[in-house]
Amino acid sequence: MGEKYNILIAQSGGPTVAINASLAGVMREAFASEEIDRVYGGCNGIQGILEDRILELNEQFENNEENLHKLECTPAMFLGSCRYKMKSYEEDTTDYDRVLEIFQKYHIGAFFYIGGNDSMDTVDKMSQYVKAHDMDVKVVGIPKTIDNDLMMIDHTPGFGSAAKYIATTVREIAMDTYIYNMDTVVIVEIMGRNAGWLTAAAALARNNYNIAPQLIYLPEVAFDTDAFVQKVKKSLFQYHHVIVAVSEGIKDKDGNYISAQGNNVDKFGHAMLSGTGAVLKDIVTERIGCKVRSIELNVLQRAAAHISSATDLKESVELGKNGVRLAKAGKTGVMSTLTRKDTPKYEVEYSFADISKIANEEKKVPLEWITEEGTDVSNDMIEYLRPLVLGEVTVPYKDGIPDYMFDRVRRK
Amino acid sequence: MGEKYNILIAQSGGPTVAINASLAGVMREAFASEEIDRVYGGCNGIQGILEDRILELNEQFENNEENLHKLECTPAMFLGSCRYKMKSYEEDTTDYDRVLEIFQKYHIGAFFYIGGNDSMDTVDKMSQYVKAHDMDVKVVGIPKTIDNDLMMIDHTPGFGSAAKYIATTVREIAMDTYIYNMDTVVIVEIMGRNAGWLTAAAALARNNYNIAPQLIYLPEVAFDTDAFVQKVKKSLFQYHHVIVAVSEGIKDKDGNYISAQGNNVDKFGHAMLSGTGAVLKDIVTERIGCKVRSIELNVLQRAAAHISSATDLKESVELGKNGVRLAKAGKTGVMSTLTRKDTPKYEVEYSFADISKIANEEKKVPLEWITEEGTDVSNDMIEYLRPLVLGEVTVPYKDGIPDYMFDRVRRK
Repeated sequence: MGEKYNILIAQSGGPTVAINASLAGVMREAFASEEIDRVYGGCNGIQGILEDRILELNEQFENNEENLHKLECTPAMFLGSCRYKMKSYEEDTTDYDRVLEIFQKYHIGAFFYIGGNDSMDTVDKMSQYVKAHDMDVKVVGIPKTIDNDLMMIDHTPGFGSAAKYIATTVREIAMDTYIYNMDTVVIVEIMGRNAGWLTAAAALARNNYNIAPQLIYLPEVAFDTDAFVQKVKKSLFQYHHVIVAVSEGIKDKDGNYISAQGNNVDKFGHAMLSGTGAVLKDIVTERIGCKVRSIELNVLQRAAAHISSATDLKESVELGKNGVRLAKAGKTGVMSTLTRKDTPKYEVEYSFADISKIANEEKKVPLEWITEEGTDVSNDMIEYLRPLVLGEVTVPYKDGIPDYMFDRVRRK
Repeated sequence: MGEKYNILIAQSGGPTVAINASLAGVMREAFASEEIDRVYGGCNGIQGILEDRILELNEQFENNEENLHKLECTPAMFLGSCRYKMKSYEEDTTDYDRVLEIFQKYHIGAFFYIGGNDSMDTVDKMSQYVKAHDMDVKVVGIPKTIDNDLMMIDHTPGFGSAAKYIATTVREIAMDTYIYNMDTVVIVEIMGRNAGWLTAAAALARNNYNIAPQLIYLPEVAFDTDAFVQKVKKSLFQYHHVIVAVSEGIKDKDGNYISAQGNNVDKFGHAMLSGTGAVLKDIVTERIGCKVRSIELNVLQRAAAHISSATDLKESVELGKNGVRLAKAGKTGVMSTLTRKDTPKYEVEYSFADISKIANEEKKVPLEWITEEGTDVSNDMIEYLRPLVLGEVTVPYKDGIPDYMFDRVRRK
């Protein structure tokens, strides 16, 4: 690529509060690159690219620190998302050929796709197809997912902020619970279908005055209802107020979801869960009979940008920048990654990994980071999690409410 | 009261993030008063006072700005709460006589009870009984409730912070919803059994880029399911993403709760609600069939001190201080209040009201602040709400998580 080229960025999958920070990072590095001219954004992920819904981003963001900073603090996705699964090109090349047309039309030299496991599948397929057609377009994945379940990366952008929200909220829920002199159980249902990282973060709610959550249930360990009832009873006897952090995706020893709605699946074949907390609440009511409440953190754990982790947003920007550097160095079919250095103080370095090792894989919580009884996490887990939630972000406020950036994709 | 006397403070009812600020305010004024010696705290409200569970607070807080500030930022209740309903003294004087004993034992010259409607009932009864027994103890109520439903006060401590949390969260939920190019309805269920103030605060989520919530349903207006379905359909057609803010306590024209669980009642005879959002979700699924999600804000709206309103916390401190000044001026059987001045810039002045006009009464949203169709609030409501959420609080953080003050009441 001797002459100048343009780049295309899009976002996909579920939202996090850090995905726009990675978009800003890509733009920051691109604006600083002599060889890159225009930065284009594809609306609603690959789906909008197929429909030629492409925006020019230079005007709004180049040499505009205020807008870049505001974007970095803004939750969800400035460019919108999709849940579009491309067929394999052996099966049908229509979508692939259409994307190549778009690349040619906009003189695209590098394509960046910010997303999770499913989005990395798109990156994998596109990079293979581009190579097979001898096109000079680098295809680079930028990671994001609150679930922290991507392979080949120490932790994912968006996870640290979700962890900070979860730990803060669980601590606040515990304090709300302590006020009555009455045996009480609170079940906090946290996202995570197959990996328990987010639920593990509830452990950070503990400090010198708060021992809650006393029980933590992750999907990596089979859930036993009788053992759960015994554990809650024992904890109630000891503490009177018991907070239980539970992943939505816990399953029994036969692999059946505890949630009553576990049989529904989405387009990717993932189980769609809700109600795990409600099921456990009913169990406590029936078999223990004390006051019990179930709280579903719901989408707030991925949207609460007002309490983002400064560490998370900084790393998300850097992963975006690093992605552009990878493309400029000729890398394709890779994901921008970070590795935790083996230093006493927390430090990371930015690198890359082959996308085929990431796409459609899931990184679960290692069993040695879960206690033997399966109801808590180990100190290794706490040490792993702690640096990721550090630092507060000064979000812009207007009229007392966080003032985020207007997204560019709504139909109305 | 020529000689020095001690004072007793307790907290009661449901938690807010501002109730400890009022406790700090009472202490600040008491520590500065020549005539007041010791400040005692009663644990778990009137219930703990009956059990002689009394703490001395001077050691921890007097001349300790750091501890006072930390207390002011701490959610829930430092002294714990109760839901204890005193019988009328005509019926049974046991509890009343016991409280008088405690007053004598600790040489109490003034008793401050921080709470909502039910707690003001306790203040009313106690002040009457004290007067009838010619005891020189001033009994003063300090208001608090996220519900904003107390009479004789412009707005209640705790409400502004809850409103800020609700508006912020609804805005973040809206942004989370906008990312998919797909017709979506999100129902946000907000606290409020009979008064819609909290749900009205969702309107503050709107700004120049966010028109959600498009529909707001308060308990002051009878809920009509058919009209709701028509409104949602129309809004979906226009906006594609529709956020509905709904009070848990909405009822149909015959006064029946929409929530399926509306028939359970608590000790005070209040209906215990949950599931209003879930009921509306089912209605949308059955009659419209688009993607729909229900989110219950749950206890987070009263516990999320990490996003308190600075205006709310400041006023809560002042209402506590004002309570002490009222007692010193010889007032009893009153509640510390604030009035909004008729000035262009928002200003309040502190005053008092006769407790009998407040106890067991509920201030509802005036119908003229609800639009004619009953699906939104008026500009007068917005202007009333706006100043209450202003200002951000610098909460102390440790290890990335808000560092609140350890409460003093847990049994373990």
